[in-house]
Amino acid sequence: MEKPPVEGYIRIEFPSEEVARVVYESVRLEHETVPYRRSEIDFRREGKAIILEFKATDNSALRGTLNSYLRWIKVAMDSFEV
Amino acid sequence: MEKPPVEGYIRIEFPSEEVARVVYESVRLEHETVPYRRSEIDFRREGKAIILEFKATDNSALRGTLNSYLRWIKVAMDSFEV
Repeated sequence: MEKPPVEGYIRIEFPSEEVARVVYESVRLEHETVPYRRSEIDFRREGKAIILEFKATDNSALRGTLNSYLRWIKVAMDSFEV
Repeated sequence: MEKPPVEGYIRIEFPSEEVARVVYESVRLEHETVPYRRSEIDFRREGKAIILEFKATDNSALRGTLNSYLRWIKVAMDSFEV
């Protein structure tokens, strides 16, 4: 079966715009250094929310991509706890 | 940091309505037997597409949930190849 196109978005709302900005800035560095991408990712901040819009050629590529971004976001959030 | 609400959707378009129906029916069985869910999932078929709409209490819960659904969908798709 030829690989079905996959698209969608994930929206994460943070307690404040400041927290969203710090998390966004730290993940943006990862976003910009990803060498090769099988998924098209639009990664942006809108006020208190971080938005991840994506298009992928297949859902395995998407799984890998979503896992990376959600993990980076989690690490950035955990750094607030220290 | 209290866990930020996470929401979004994933849309996968298949080559035909028939393929979408078969993949949907096989994954629906998994969807209905998931005992405990930290994410709210709306899982439906619209013509040739399967839609996964979700709300989660935190992105780790979401990661686990998305991984399961995308893996079930992949297994159902691979069963076409046999």
